[in-house]
Amino acid sequence: MKVDGKHYRSIWLEPDGWSVGAIDQRRLPHEFVIARLTNCAEAADAIRSMLVRGAPLIGATAAFGMALAMHEDASDAGIERAYQTLIVARPTAINLKWALDEMRAVLRPLDPSARAQVAYARAGAIADEDVVINQGMARNGLALIETIAARKKAGEAINVLTHCNAGWLATVDWGTATAPIYLAHDRGHKVHVWVDETRPRNQGASLTAWELGHHGVPHTVIPDNTGGHLMQHGMVDLVIVGTDRVAVNGDVCNKIGTYLKALAAFDNGVPFYVALPSPTIDFNISDGRQVPIEQRGGEEVAAMTGRTADGRIETVRIVPEGSPVANYAFDVTPARLVTGLITERGVLKPERMALAAAFPERMASAAE
Amino acid sequence: MKVDGKHYRSIWLEPDGWSVGAIDQRRLPHEFVIARLTNCAEAADAIRSMLVRGAPLIGATAAFGMALAMHEDASDAGIERAYQTLIVARPTAINLKWALDEMRAVLRPLDPSARAQVAYARAGAIADEDVVINQGMARNGLALIETIAARKKAGEAINVLTHCNAGWLATVDWGTATAPIYLAHDRGHKVHVWVDETRPRNQGASLTAWELGHHGVPHTVIPDNTGGHLMQHGMVDLVIVGTDRVAVNGDVCNKIGTYLKALAAFDNGVPFYVALPSPTIDFNISDGRQVPIEQRGGEEVAAMTGRTADGRIETVRIVPEGSPVANYAFDVTPARLVTGLITERGVLKPERMALAAAFPERMASAAE
Repeated sequence: MKVDGKHYRSIWLEPDGWSVGAIDQRRLPHEFVIARLTNCAEAADAIRSMLVRGAPLIGATAAFGMALAMHEDASDAGIERAYQTLIVARPTAINLKWALDEMRAVLRPLDPSARAQVAYARAGAIADEDVVINQGMARNGLALIETIAARKKAGEAINVLTHCNAGWLATVDWGTATAPIYLAHDRGHKVHVWVDETRPRNQGASLTAWELGHHGVPHTVIPDNTGGHLMQHGMVDLVIVGTDRVAVNGDVCNKIGTYLKALAAFDNGVPFYVALPSPTIDFNISDGRQVPIEQRGGEEVAAMTGRTADGRIETVRIVPEGSPVANYAFDVTPARLVTGLITERGVLKPERMALAAAFPERMASAAE
Repeated sequence: MKVDGKHYRSIWLEPDGWSVGAIDQRRLPHEFVIARLTNCAEAADAIRSMLVRGAPLIGATAAFGMALAMHEDASDAGIERAYQTLIVARPTAINLKWALDEMRAVLRPLDPSARAQVAYARAGAIADEDVVINQGMARNGLALIETIAARKKAGEAINVLTHCNAGWLATVDWGTATAPIYLAHDRGHKVHVWVDETRPRNQGASLTAWELGHHGVPHTVIPDNTGGHLMQHGMVDLVIVGTDRVAVNGDVCNKIGTYLKALAAFDNGVPFYVALPSPTIDFNISDGRQVPIEQRGGEEVAAMTGRTADGRIETVRIVPEGSPVANYAFDVTPARLVTGLITERGVLKPERMALAAAFPERMASAAE
């Protein structure tokens, strides 16, 4: 998507043919800084420090990290060392392990002299595959937006509400929840996005607002408390969010607060969609109650970082000293509140049979 | 309630007999500063700038504002000028209009020479009446908490979730939603409060956490996104919130985000109570759709004020430059989601007949 009129991905091979460029997401939205990764350790650091974040982008970064490792040392030991360096960067990220397993499996059988070239090619392909999947979601979600557009009077905006950042910054390009939005915008539909701030880490206010703004998509940042009121007053046509994991019954684990928006959507007859690349479906989990909910540090709630009027980046505490804080990172939205799952293979009902029919090969391997 | 072991109200007549003291709530939780109001314009400014906030405290401040006006100019024109100065300070607060109408009705028939003394007496009485009303809510709400306590195992806490600040800082003392909590705590019940941060102005994190902490009530600050997850997991026994206005059908207008918590409570079978002094009931409004919803400045959402690690108070911007922001201050929770209204005359069903039966004199005068 676009930044200051120029097309970017969140990660790319630099023109030198071997080093890797990435947007430093820790500096957004106040500074747009490009990082250059020149070896495997730097790629691991980028993942660990959240210079890059979002499951698909972490996977692509790990793949490029393996390629950088082959550029340094293409021996068998080099493969193993790179794998071990990268796998510990975010130990719970499933895409990280998937990308590393894939790269190792491709590289091991090759003669060391061929490994670097193949590694860069496979890493590039992993990045491209993410983009293709997201474009599939974009097309499938676009149909939903166009159905709503057809009911609008001329000049009326289609209002989409989203929570957290499931945007192109969390992927290689296009994003998941944002993919249909970008495509609708690029096709000339008048889309306006209500952007949930997304406390406590403010990914909506910091990242989603930034990327929509730079691509030219009209949007408005709102506190997480606001969406229900907007839906009561007919100011939201549909909700599209991303997800970290979908259970096989259609329960959706996503950023904390998603459940509240799903309740409000249901109460007001607003369609509530979840956009996801199919690897996000966990065919081994029968319902959302089995998803462990990560608790993170209280300082994410108690303190906030932003830019002062004179341009300094400062962190301020907003909770009184001595008041305890709880920080649950995710919640589970029951499938009964979800209108549909936007995947690269179509918009599916959030239920076991629909997922099994669309992804028979995944269902079969999970049953083994 | 207590601050550093000493009893305070949120507003009081100073020992000089004419100026008015109030806690500057804009400085909390990081600084405890007393403001001195010396004329009607300062009282209006205190309401407008949210130095004081909360419907009952706004009412008391308006009454003291009229008294300060009589101290300056006790003419008929002085009454009208003060009324007009104060009435525009906050659009949604019904207590503001009630207190001003009451003061004007008391003052108009009097000889100007008698007005100042009577105005201070009536303002003081309005403040005292608020405390008495809140103590009534405390007793009526205590019964609800004790019913839950009776089902708990020994040592188990009763978990109450609250939104925004309907604490003693929002009233003259005791608070509305917090009144039963303080009474239960003072009676030795083990109460724990989940405190919604309450974006965008953070009244929960800044004020409710501060006052509970100073009074010694166990509590935990959570992002507004968290309550639904807690209710799904049985971690909330009841919700008690305040309100800015209740329609005669039981619809509840309160701080933005209240509706989302009511939906979650309903979805999980958690009792959802609203505590209110009876002047908050608007017998002239048949349902919540008629309540105008105040929109406030976007800078409340885009920027946040807190304390840096080295003790400075700083304001930082968290939304990218150029991203529009919307700031709806309140929402309306439909009566169907409300378990009961905790008033000084008992816990009432949120419906016209119950309100009419409990407050026949108000219903009769509204019908006129």
